[in-house]
Parts: sequence; C-alpha cells; structure tokens
Amino acid sequence: MADSRKVGVLGGGQLGRMLIEAANRLNIQVNVLDAAASPAKQISAHDGHIEGSFKDASSVKKLAQACDVVTVEIEHVDTHMLEEVAGEVAVEPSWKTLRTIKDKYAQKEYLKEHGVDVAESEDLEGKGADGLKAVGERFGYPYMLKSKTEAYDGRGNFVVRSEANIDAAIKALGDRPLYAERWAEFRMELAVMVVKTKDGVLTFPTVETVHEDSICKLTYAPPRNVSKETTQRAQDLAKKAIGAFEGKGVFGVEMFLLKDDTLLVNEIAPRPHNSGHYTIEACPLSQYDAHLRAILDMPIPASALRLREPAIMLNILGGKTPDSHLKVAHKAYESPNASIHLYGKGDARPGRKMGHITVTAPTLSEAEKEIQPLIDFVDDQRGKPLGPRAAQVDEPLVAVIMGSDSDLPVLKAGLQILEKLQIPFTTRITSAHRTPDWLREFSKSAADTSLRVIIGAAGGAAHLPGMCASWTTLPVVGLPVKVTHMDGWDSLVSMTQMPRGEPVATVGINNSTNAALLAVRILGATDLAVRERLRVWMEGNEKEVLRKDQELAEQGFESYLKKMGKW
Amino acid sequence: MADSRKVGVLGGGQLGRMLIEAANRLNIQVNVLDAAASPAKQISAHDGHIEGSFKDASSVKKLAQACDVVTVEIEHVDTHMLEEVAGEVAVEPSWKTLRTIKDKYAQKEYLKEHGVDVAESEDLEGKGADGLKAVGERFGYPYMLKSKTEAYDGRGNFVVRSEANIDAAIKALGDRPLYAERWAEFRMELAVMVVKTKDGVLTFPTVETVHEDSICKLTYAPPRNVSKETTQRAQDLAKKAIGAFEGKGVFGVEMFLLKDDTLLVNEIAPRPHNSGHYTIEACPLSQYDAHLRAILDMPIPASALRLREPAIMLNILGGKTPDSHLKVAHKAYESPNASIHLYGKGDARPGRKMGHITVTAPTLSEAEKEIQPLIDFVDDQRGKPLGPRAAQVDEPLVAVIMGSDSDLPVLKAGLQILEKLQIPFTTRITSAHRTPDWLREFSKSAADTSLRVIIGAAGGAAHLPGMCASWTTLPVVGLPVKVTHMDGWDSLVSMTQMPRGEPVATVGINNSTNAALLAVRILGATDLAVRERLRVWMEGNEKEVLRKDQELAEQGFESYLKKMGKW
Repeated sequence: MADSRKVGVLGGGQLGRMLIEAANRLNIQVNVLDAAASPAKQISAHDGHIEGSFKDASSVKKLAQACDVVTVEIEHVDTHMLEEVAGEVAVEPSWKTLRTIKDKYAQKEYLKEHGVDVAESEDLEGKGADGLKAVGERFGYPYMLKSKTEAYDGRGNFVVRSEANIDAAIKALGDRPLYAERWAEFRMELAVMVVKTKDGVLTFPTVETVHEDSICKLTYAPPRNVSKETTQRAQDLAKKAIGAFEGKGVFGVEMFLLKDDTLLVNEIAPRPHNSGHYTIEACPLSQYDAHLRAILDMPIPASALRLREPAIMLNILGGKTPDSHLKVAHKAYESPNASIHLYGKGDARPGRKMGHITVTAPTLSEAEKEIQPLIDFVDDQRGKPLGPRAAQVDEPLVAVIMGSDSDLPVLKAGLQILEKLQIPFTTRITSAHRTPDWLREFSKSAADTSLRVIIGAAGGAAHLPGMCASWTTLPVVGLPVKVTHMDGWDSLVSMTQMPRGEPVATVGINNSTNAALLAVRILGATDLAVRERLRVWMEGNEKEVLRKDQELAEQGFESYLKKMGKW
Repeated sequence: MADSRKVGVLGGGQLGRMLIEAANRLNIQVNVLDAAASPAKQISAHDGHIEGSFKDASSVKKLAQACDVVTVEIEHVDTHMLEEVAGEVAVEPSWKTLRTIKDKYAQKEYLKEHGVDVAESEDLEGKGADGLKAVGERFGYPYMLKSKTEAYDGRGNFVVRSEANIDAAIKALGDRPLYAERWAEFRMELAVMVVKTKDGVLTFPTVETVHEDSICKLTYAPPRNVSKETTQRAQDLAKKAIGAFEGKGVFGVEMFLLKDDTLLVNEIAPRPHNSGHYTIEACPLSQYDAHLRAILDMPIPASALRLREPAIMLNILGGKTPDSHLKVAHKAYESPNASIHLYGKGDARPGRKMGHITVTAPTLSEAEKEIQPLIDFVDDQRGKPLGPRAAQVDEPLVAVIMGSDSDLPVLKAGLQILEKLQIPFTTRITSAHRTPDWLREFSKSAADTSLRVIIGAAGGAAHLPGMCASWTTLPVVGLPVKVTHMDGWDSLVSMTQMPRGEPVATVGINNSTNAALLAVRILGATDLAVRERLRVWMEGNEKEVLRKDQELAEQGFESYLKKMGKW
C-alpha cells in the first residue's frame, strides 16, 4: 500500500523536473541521473540522485541498482545498458522501444510495418552526394534530409531545396547517419499525448503545435479550425502508433495534417513532451502525473485526461540577453491567466528552452487575446520580427442566419444589441428552400464550431429556424418576420408549432431586439461576465423608465405630450 | 529584473512546502528555517536553508542575514527577534501584525478597535475559577474558553457547557493565559483569503469551511446555499479586517455566518491558510503565488484571484494506522478530478494533517458527488462513524414554474424528458396574479442559485414567464397552456409579444416536450456532456422514424393502418 517504490530517471532537464513536481505531491522518490544541480535535482532534496551522464553505462547501472523502475526524459540514452539491467529492474518504456525510436529512420520503418501512415523516407547512410541527388529525382525538391540519431529541436535536420543545395547539406550533416523524407505540404501540425498502461492505451486531447526554426513555439488546445472528426482521427492514429510499441508511460506523437485532411505521423517521443506541457493546468491529470502512474501501474481514470478549459502554451526560448527569460516572466506577471514555469537553467542561450507559459481561458479566443502580447514580447526578446498576427477577431458565439437579405433591416436592432453587449457573432444568408443543402451543411457543422446559439430570422412559411434545429443540437432562436400577408402570424406559428422533439425558441414578430437578448441570456446562463453586462444593461433601461415617470409626474401630461410633439 | 532576491521562511511544514512549490516555478530561492528534512526542505535542494527552530532567536537572526525578505508559515514565532532584524531585512507581514495576531485576545481587541465585528470576549488571565464563573453568568452557557497563545487546530480551546464544567476547563487549560468568548450560534463557517500588497487589499472568493473536532475538514468554493450578497459581504468584512494590519502577504480570515445572516470574524491567520489550499487548482493564481508576489512587490492582477471551477478541498488527517494517508491517496487515484497533495511527513498520527485532496468540477454538486466516497473513506480511516450524508440530490439547473397545479398534467411529458436526459430540476407553483410577491422573490434570486434556465408554464393571460423574465437575467422558456377559451392563442401571444428588452423563448401550445428540450439545448450550449446526451436521444428518434418508414414501405398502408387500429 505505502508507495515506497523508487523511480529512476535518465536525464534531469525540464521534463525530469516537471515529473518530479508531480512525484513530490505523491511523496514518490525519484532518483535523477544527470549533472549536479540539474533542473530536476533542484527541486528534490535527497541522497538518492546519481551524478553523471545518462549516456554513461556505469552510471545507468548505478541508478538501476537504486530503483524499482527506470524511465527516461530523453531517448538519446545508452539502450544497451538498459537492456542489460532490464533483468534486475523494470525499464519503462522498454529498451527495445527506446532503441527503435531513438533512430528516426528505424522508427519510421517500424511504424510503416505496423500499418501507421508516415511520410515516405529513404535510407541514405553511406550513399553520399549521389544518394542525395537520386532522392531529389525521386521525391522532387524540396525534401528533408535528417540525421537518424541525436536529432531534436531542429538540430540534425536540413531542407534540401534544389540539387544546387546538396553540397551545403553534406557540409552540414555529412558526418552523421542520414535518411531523406518526402516533403509534407501540411496545413498544420497536430500532436497527441498517448498514455500506455498495463491495461491499454489512452489519449489526451489533440493539440495544434506551431514550430519556428524547427523548435516548438506554441501549442493550442484544442487546435484552431479543425473539426472534431479530424481531432478524433488524430487520437486514433496516435493510439495505433503507440499500440505498436512495447512498454508503459506517456508518448508524444507529432503529426502532419495535410491540405487534403490526411494525417501522417511525423515523429514519436517515448516520454513526456513539450506539446503536453499544457496538461499541467488544462487537464485534471497532467502528462507527468500520467507518466508516473503508468510506469508504476497506478490507476488512471480515462476522464482525467479531458480538457478542462482551452489552453495555449508558449515556450520561453532564450533570447539576445542572458536574462531574456526573466524579462518574459516579468511581463507575464501582469497576465491574469498565465501560469509561469521557469526551468532553473541559469543564463539563457539563444533558442534554449528556458521555461514556458500556459494561458487557460473559457474560450480559445480569449486565451489567444491574452497571450498575444506575450508572443510579441518573446519574439522581440529573440530579435525576431513580429510574427503574422492572428486576425484579432473573436470567434463567433452567435450565428444570425436569415432566409433572405430582405430580413436584414429587421435584424438591425438585434445586431446592434449584440454589439453593445460585446457578443461576437456572424451573419449568414441561408434559405431553407433556395439553399437547402447549404442550410443543412451549416446546421450540421454548427455544434463543432465556436457557436453556442443560432438566431434564425424568416418570414412566410419560415422553415429556416425549424430546419436548422432539426440538424443541430444547439439552441435555435426563431425570429418571425412580417412579410406581405397575414401580419407575421404565418411565421410566428410556423416557429412555435414545431413538432415534439425539435424546439424553436420563438420571440415576437419583428422583435429582433428580443431575439438578440434571448441569445445573450442563453450565453449568460453559464458565462457570468455576459450575465453581468446584461444586468447592467437592464438596470439602465429601468432607470430610463423611472426617469420618464418622474418627468411625467412633475410636468403633467400636457407638457409631456407637447415635448413629445403629440399635443 | 533578474529576481535574485532570496525569501526566508520561518517554518517548513506543509504551508512552507506549497509556498516553495510556487517559488520553484519562478526560480525564486526560498531559505527555510526548520528541522532538517522538514516537508518544505524536501522539495528545495540548495545550501541556503537553516537548521533549527523557528522559535529560536539566533536561528531567526541567521536566516535574516541570508535573505532579502523574511516571512512566516506560522505565527507562533519569536516576534521580538523579528522586530530586531526588521531594520536589516524586510519582514512581511510586519512583526507588529504577527505579535498582535499570535495573541488571540489581543487580535480580537485590535479588530474591535478597528470597527470589525467579532464575537464578544473577556480577558480571564489570572482570574481563576471565579472569573470563569462570572463570565458564565454574563455570557450564559455554553461559552468558549480559549488560550490566548499557541492555540490552533482545536488545541487550546475548551467548551464550557455549564458551571459544573469549570473544574474540567481549568484542569485542561489552567496553566495557559486564558480568555472567554461568547458562544456563536452559527449557520456555517466562511473563510476568505485576503492579499495585502504594497498597493492595496485584494480578496480570493469566499469559501465555506467545515470543521470537525475543531480541525478544518472540508472547504467548499463557493459556499453551499449562500447568496452572492452574503459572500460579497464576507469579502468586504475580510478586507476591512486585514486593512487594519500592517504588512504584506496573504491572510486567512475565518468567519461565522450567524443564523440571522450576521457575519463575525472568528480568527485571522497572517499567512497562507488551510482554507486557501483549493486555490492551487481552482484559481489562476494560488494563495502561495499570491503570497510570494505580495511580499516581493510583484504584480497581482485582481482577476487572477477568480474561481475557475467550483472546488471542494478535503484534508487527509492521520487515521488509525501510520499509512492511513497513503490509503486515502490510493483511493483518490480512482477519482478523475481529484488532485492529491501529500506533505512528506512520514508516518501518520491521528488527527495530523498529512495531505489534502482537491476535487474541481463544472458544478459544485458534481464535485460533491465525486468527493463523497473520499470523505467516507477518510472518516473510516479515522475510525469515525460515517458523517451525515449531504442529501445526494443534485442542485437543480432548471426550474419549472407554473401558475397553477392544473398546468402540471401538461408539463408531465416535459418533466419526463428532463429526467431521461438527466437534468436536475425543481418544480414550483407561483402565480403572477395570486402570488406576485413570491414570483418576484423567486425570480429575483434565481440567478444567485444553481439555476441556469427557467421554464414558465401558464394559460390565459399567461403573465408568468414574462414577469419572471423581467426580474431575472436567466433565459426563460415560455410554455403556453391551452385553457378554456381561444385554444391557447391567448397564452401564446402573451408570451411571444413581450416588449423589447425582456424576451420569453416561446414554444408550441401545450408542447412541454419542446419546452424541456429547449432547456436542454440551452444547457448543452456550454455543457458538452448534456449536448452529447441530447444528440444520442435525437439519433434514437431518427432511427425510430426510419424504422417506421421501412415498415410502411414493406407492409403497405393497409396493413400498417390495421396495426395502428385505424382501419
């Protein structure tokens, strides 16, 4: 019962440090093999640590003798020594897995054999310039030249842009074991943290990663503008990839999402990963908790890997000055939802991972707005030109759809209310009868977007909101618009009298103000800031009527009517 | 810019440990004065710690010499030595504040002088049994006898239940400096963490605390069944109390909420406090972050102290066996939203604070449901009888109000839908015309409860949902009920044709199914679990109609009508 098992970890950088943060809370002793005062050792005061290199066989052996389970924070370790000690101590994940993954070419071949989609690659070891030229002819240019081993954070990669580029490529990487990869024209990069336990394979949510100079810069959870279907496919692919390997622990799976929505696995990390830092704040269980629990056979409830709130992670990379990371942290102190993690690495070197910041917020666009000044600040510290600004447009929470542009004048007052109460919205024209397929497409996908409420305005037969409600699970507000006949009664009844099963929240004829206010109330049911803005607005209306009452009482009806121009 | 300032802390227990967790992330060195291997020192490996007692003057001096700011994790320290070193090093909060607060009687007198409401108290130092008897006559029985100093977690308190009890009281506490407090018949205990910075006073949200044997057992954020007005008053009172003291840092303010809604300050802690543990997971900034930032004059955005998600904190108190706390942690591993903190204290002693668990969830009742088995388990480990169960009723998200019980049969189908889709609801009768004051009271307070949507059913003039909407900011669904005349048109129009400003989301006449489904959609706009249940339900309906279509196509209309009994 009492967990007196000791965990040994090869490597004491930031990943080992955050693993120890999690272990400290559970009073699990972690023995670190790395230099003295490495980041991980700084927050763990006991005499079980080993001083030495995680690449040194005798140190690995010493660590293994002092632990019950040995794991890694980096895959570039001596797997032969791990193989040797595996008889005496549990090694998680398996040394076989580490050996396959640390060689990127072997990793890709292994995945391919197990039916996992990866970018096409070709072995170039010992083939020299001729080999590079032949690959260029086969793959076309550009292609990626990569070192099979010791490659990370962009080191060991070279983009071969044309035949004329081959000499430079050989100069840069010629002394390393090489392979080539076909260029992936990706729309974006996705990543999934996978947890392999004794019982099966679980996944954290899919995230979007943004790289700069081949180093991870940002992680968005959830990814921007990616459908649920695609994020689910990414999780399935990641699960399949990791299912092919032996051993327990968390694995990072980096993927390309191509322009045609195909997913290819790019790279696997057999350990906690930069793309999973966001889990510390954004999920009930972090990737570090999950890694510890997986290698120690402790329970992991699947729902503990859910996203509590959208989150964006920004790496603090070393900039121009040795204290650039401290300046970034200082700036982040003013950001109310920013959690700051510095890694205790001393002075910054350009491009070095010195820390990270995670901003969580009720919506991704709120998080984007809060983190943008910090991204700008990091770019500035690194001497980078300011990156392309994400258009600072809030993702819409309300869609106002209308059967025809002739409904737009009626909608004006409502749209102004949405603006006044700061509700981001979008307006679309989609007719149930003239564009039934477009209405279907819009309605079916609405729940997968940022939208939370739909307002449908229509006149006459007024099928728009009712059909929309039949294809979505979102609440639909119906605004009956008065057209030629029947004074609007036709639309009103078409909306209220929906069959049992698909309600339309109907408001008064032509009363777009109330349609908008109903959408605001629906958002305010859970968003207290919205509710407060509505309360203040209603209070303003109350005061205005009370003021008028006072005036009427004081001046009498005659003077009042005169002022109104009605006498 | 680079924060090389060193913080010294008197005491290295769990509060110091969690302070260091926060400091580690910012790479701020904290030097701890306490025994070797105390909980705080275990997670901080550097040679700046001081071994010794925080009550020992020479050790305090040694610590002060090695730091830029000295703070405390406990108030029972040598304030004279702090006074002496205050010239050379910043002491936060001020030694004067610590001196006043560590004497509970002086603390109460000080608060009274500064206009803060506290329970009536009387000095008994040196007054013996006669003094106790005189107080009993003045205050009545029971009253609280308390030691002025060195009193915490119930130690140093004695309930004097009658005159016959006085001898026992003297036996228990007679050798200590005593005072008496009038018994407070409280409805519940509240607590507020206050942050005092160089610029002003900020507060975390009000929480409810539950004590057992005078030791904090549970914290509920937000408090159960307390109005926003009261939680705001509690924060204001806490702010006023702490505003009266000198110095920077966080302060815990414990209060009694009396049966008549009066608030009295019970006790103040000039440091992080058990009632603020929940902030680690539930707020963007924790009480430990806030304390560090306050004493180091770093920025604290007020909105970083908000509650992200409701949370419940459960203390893991030592039980019958030395490993009882590990058993509790083990049990909590299965709880998906439980964050576990063990303090590294070695073997458990009965009643000792060994760790805590925080469960956060989208609603407090979800958190209550998840934590109940853990409360039971802790009780069992401590050999306690199972405590009174919070009635395991979910707090209602939907209120279904009706003008008359004659509307209930129409509502039946809708209420069944709410049950089927697992939406907790409440049903009330409140007529706009027969009980206008009750409707007003209900509507005005609705937004301060767990409710998120109101369904109002009414016939005839059908003012119920419209008046309700005029007094609340929550979304109101209107269900027109058909009564004697006009086939329900009267109610329908009364609901849709609300004036601009207060919408009623109207559904079809007598269609309570749709009223309920609209409420479900509104909840599902943000609650994805609800949305998924709705989607599955709609899919079931779709399949049912497709099945009927198949049957009609295969059997022909005659056979189908016969089966329906309509041939």
